[in-house]
Formats: sequence, structure tokens, C-alpha cells
Amino acid sequence: MSVLVVGTVGIDRVETPHGERSDLLGGSASFAGLAASFHAPVSLNSVVGEDFPAHHRAIWEKRKIDLSGLQVVQGKTFRWHGQYEQNMNNRRTISTDLNVVADFQPQLPEGQKKLPFVLLGNLAPDLQHSVLDQMQKPKFVVADTMNLWIDIARTRLLELLPRIDLLILNDSEATQLSDEPNLVRAARWLRERGPRYVAVKKGEHGCFLSGPEGAFAAPAVPLEQVLDPTGAGDTFAGGLTGYLAGQKEANLSTLAQGVIEGTILASFTVEDFSLNRLASLSEKEIASRRRDLLRLINPNP
Amino acid sequence: MSVLVVGTVGIDRVETPHGERSDLLGGSASFAGLAASFHAPVSLNSVVGEDFPAHHRAIWEKRKIDLSGLQVVQGKTFRWHGQYEQNMNNRRTISTDLNVVADFQPQLPEGQKKLPFVLLGNLAPDLQHSVLDQMQKPKFVVADTMNLWIDIARTRLLELLPRIDLLILNDSEATQLSDEPNLVRAARWLRERGPRYVAVKKGEHGCFLSGPEGAFAAPAVPLEQVLDPTGAGDTFAGGLTGYLAGQKEANLSTLAQGVIEGTILASFTVEDFSLNRLASLSEKEIASRRRDLLRLINPNP
Repeated sequence: MSVLVVGTVGIDRVETPHGERSDLLGGSASFAGLAASFHAPVSLNSVVGEDFPAHHRAIWEKRKIDLSGLQVVQGKTFRWHGQYEQNMNNRRTISTDLNVVADFQPQLPEGQKKLPFVLLGNLAPDLQHSVLDQMQKPKFVVADTMNLWIDIARTRLLELLPRIDLLILNDSEATQLSDEPNLVRAARWLRERGPRYVAVKKGEHGCFLSGPEGAFAAPAVPLEQVLDPTGAGDTFAGGLTGYLAGQKEANLSTLAQGVIEGTILASFTVEDFSLNRLASLSEKEIASRRRDLLRLINPNP
Repeated sequence: MSVLVVGTVGIDRVETPHGERSDLLGGSASFAGLAASFHAPVSLNSVVGEDFPAHHRAIWEKRKIDLSGLQVVQGKTFRWHGQYEQNMNNRRTISTDLNVVADFQPQLPEGQKKLPFVLLGNLAPDLQHSVLDQMQKPKFVVADTMNLWIDIARTRLLELLPRIDLLILNDSEATQLSDEPNLVRAARWLRERGPRYVAVKKGEHGCFLSGPEGAFAAPAVPLEQVLDPTGAGDTFAGGLTGYLAGQKEANLSTLAQGVIEGTILASFTVEDFSLNRLASLSEKEIASRRRDLLRLINPNP
């Protein structure tokens, strides 16, 4: 079944200890959409300016992603400039130019309103609500968020929770939103407010998934070198949602397998800048890393 | 087969956000020895003063731990006073009184010299060397260490590496010793200097095991409440070594299962102060938590 991926599309400038790149394709919808497309048909909803280059668009077209919901409006595409510290775990935003994202109002074409799976990528909670308002009873709704929205739109974010099935956020955001330093309790606090499942991302320490049937924990793929962590979380969310869209049921078992698929794709994203690695990724490479990851977590190989 | 556990025995005073306790049984050999005894016969080698209370000794005797190598010498038992911060991950040492540990020289009774498995608990590298000097070709040697010895006895610690089969240390210590912030590279750096296996402990994020056949990663047991983390690492090392002593071979697979057993026992240790929880632990409780942990890490339940 198909997945609607809503989020930002941007042009990034990224500085890391390994180098600096400009004019990179970025944004939550860009990573999540491409990742989801490895497991399911994907339809994108986002906005870009007139300056958005054709070679970025070609990356999605190559993977047959439906772009009928990608608005092209007067003005400039969203831009982000970030810098990673030596350890690659901490980053700071040098500048954010919202540009056309400032006035973005998701407008769903008729075809998108009926899609069964929705990934509400990192966006203002108001816009995430607006997408759900336009949809006709989706089967499974996933939402990502970030510390900014917990800071400035906490109430609207909490109001979103009863409308979604899976909330994805990182460990510090889970603690910030629930005021619970313990992640088991934080996940329970969040689940009590709506979503049946909560996936807490812990960066290089992997992911903790909590649901009514129990929990699942997976490590990240151990990598000797991380070139650019940008988009790893969006890739994870996209890979997980795309995998779910191909399954008969969404339960702890299929979500756990989705966590594995999201983890695999995210491990490729960080090996190069932007979507470079993901855009050229083969099924064979995915299968090989899946074998590695399943071996890594199996105490009885 | 039997395990020789060498390390400190101390009397602890622990302050946590959940309360404060004094006159607790502590020290690396205390936790590691008790943990190992759930999987193998254990023989302890350590030192205490004349003030060491009989009720502490009774905890080991109840689990049939051989105390022939426990020296009782004139003076006071080692004492440690520590305080945990609100998040329970950071602790500071308020005072350390080495007392009889200051002049400790491990003296192995004849019976201990022939034991096939050795756990060199956290101790000065000089003392860890001295134990191996007295042993007759042990089958498998495990060593734990800490940041203090990396700071003040780095050369002797590096000289120990070719003499051991498994090095256990935490993530910050692995980085400190190897000067590698990346844990995959840090583990390889350490293995190139001697031990076939390296287990990097990551506290609440679990453990990363690296060996010639590949790697294994396990999360910690997710707990809603941690009462006192003291001794969790020693318990992990003891549980892992004890498990190995009961296996035909030491390879990535049996070590991975040992990591699971160490993780299970450590999850009990932190649920109460000192060895309180471990001392009253039943096989049934261990089996139940093993089922929980194996379910937690299995994406295809």
C-alpha cells in the first residue's frame, strides 16, 4: 500500500569535520520519502520555490515517487546551514531561512487524501493537524517531531497524539515532552496520551520501541565512519513507515521489523552527504547490511 | 568449570536521589563473585580487615563461594563513599579509604592457581599481572579496568592486554585508552593489542562486543526505576565470565550469550542497594527476565 510523506524539502549547507558541502538536497520529506520508496509506493507532499533545481527533483523521479503534491510557489526554497562537532553527535544550526516554508499550507490532491499510510515528517504541529483534517480515515499514521515544536507548540503537539498511531522522537525530546528522564516511563507517558506505539531514537545507541504488547530494542549499525548524520532520523522514520505499508498488520512484530529496516537505511544515509548514498543504493546492499544487523543482534547465530 | 574472581571487597556508603545507605557490602570482587556463582563454582581472592562483618561473609557462603583466598589482615576494610546525581548516570566519589587494600598482594592458594577461568576484577594492573604470574595456564582470562588505571598505570595496563582473552571496559574508558571516539575503531585498536574479545559497556545503552568473528550488540534491560547502579559493571563481568565457564567453547556465540546473562544479572543489581537483590535472587526470576530480554531483542517473536 502507498505512503503519503509530508514534510519539508530544503537546500542544505553542511559542515562536518570531514568536509563541507553546499546546495545539498535536504529536508524531512526528502529523506523520509526516498527511504520509504525502498519498501512501498510513495507520494510526497511539500513545497519548494522556483529556484528548486531539476537535478534534485530527478532523485525522487528515479525512484518513481509521486510528486503531484509538491507545490512549486513563488520565492526561494527552504534553506538550512548546520555544523557538526568533532564527535558528530552534536550539531548547531548556523542559519535557517524558512522562505516558502513560512507560508506552507499542505494541500492534498484528491489521490493523496485516500492513502492508507501517512508519515507526518518533522513540521509544525498545526500543519500536521491540517494534513489529517484533509485525509479520509488513514489506516496508520506516523508522526515525527523535534524540540522546537515542544518548545513553541507543545499544546498543539499534545493534541496531535490521539490522532496518530506511532510517535517517533529522540530520547531528549521524549524526556522534554514527558518531563520523565527515564525512557521507559517517558514512552508510557506518551502512549497514555494517544499513540499505540512510541519509537525513541537514541542516535548511535539505536532505538527503543514501546507498544501495548511490549517493547523492542535495536542497536544502530556500528559504523567506523560517519560522514554526515543529517537526515538519519528522517530516513529511519521513512524506512519504518514504508516497511509497515507493505505488511498485513501493524503490530509489535511488524513494527520491530520496521525498526530494523529504518535502522538499515539510516546507516547508509550517514555514510555520505545528503541523499547521495541512499540515491544510489541497491537492493543487494540493503540485503547484505540486513544480514549483518540481524547477525549483530542474534545471541544464537 | 570453576572461576577465580579477584578484586576488591569493600564497605560502601551510597547516596542516591532515592535514599542513602551505609555499611553496604561492595567492591568489584563482591559483585562479580556473587554474579558468577549463578553459573559456575566460584573461588574468591581478595582482602578484608579485621572489622569485616560476618553477615557480609555469609552472603557468599550462602552461595557456596570458596573463600580460601580471602585474606583477613590487620587493619580496616576498604571503604568507598559515593553519591549519584538525579539522573543516576553520573556519580562522584566523596571519599575512598584504601585501608588494607593499599598493601594488598594477591596470594593464590594452590587450588586457585589451577583454575581454568579467571576474572581480574577492577584492580591496579600490577596486581592483575601478579595474579596471572601465579596461575598455571588458565583457559580464559577476563579483565575489567577503570579510568583511574588508564590515568596512572597506562603502560602496565597495555602490557596486560596480550595476557588476557576478554577486556571489559566502559565506552568512555575505551575511548580514553585508545584515543578513538568511534567505538568500533576503539574496540579494534584494543583487540590489536592483545585480547581476542572486547566488551564495551554503555550503561543504560547496553553492550557492544567485538571479536575476530564479528560483533554482537545487546541493549540493557529497560527498567522503570534504578535504585543504585553501584556494582552493575562488576555484576555484568561476573555473570558473563561465570556463564562462559559452563560452556564447551569461548567464541562469539557463547560470549554473546554471556553478555545476555551478564546483562540480566546487572539489571537485578541496580534494582536495590548493594548485593541485596542479587543475594535473594531465584533461578525462576532469572529465567523470567531472560525471556523478557530475549523477546526485547527479537524482531521476529
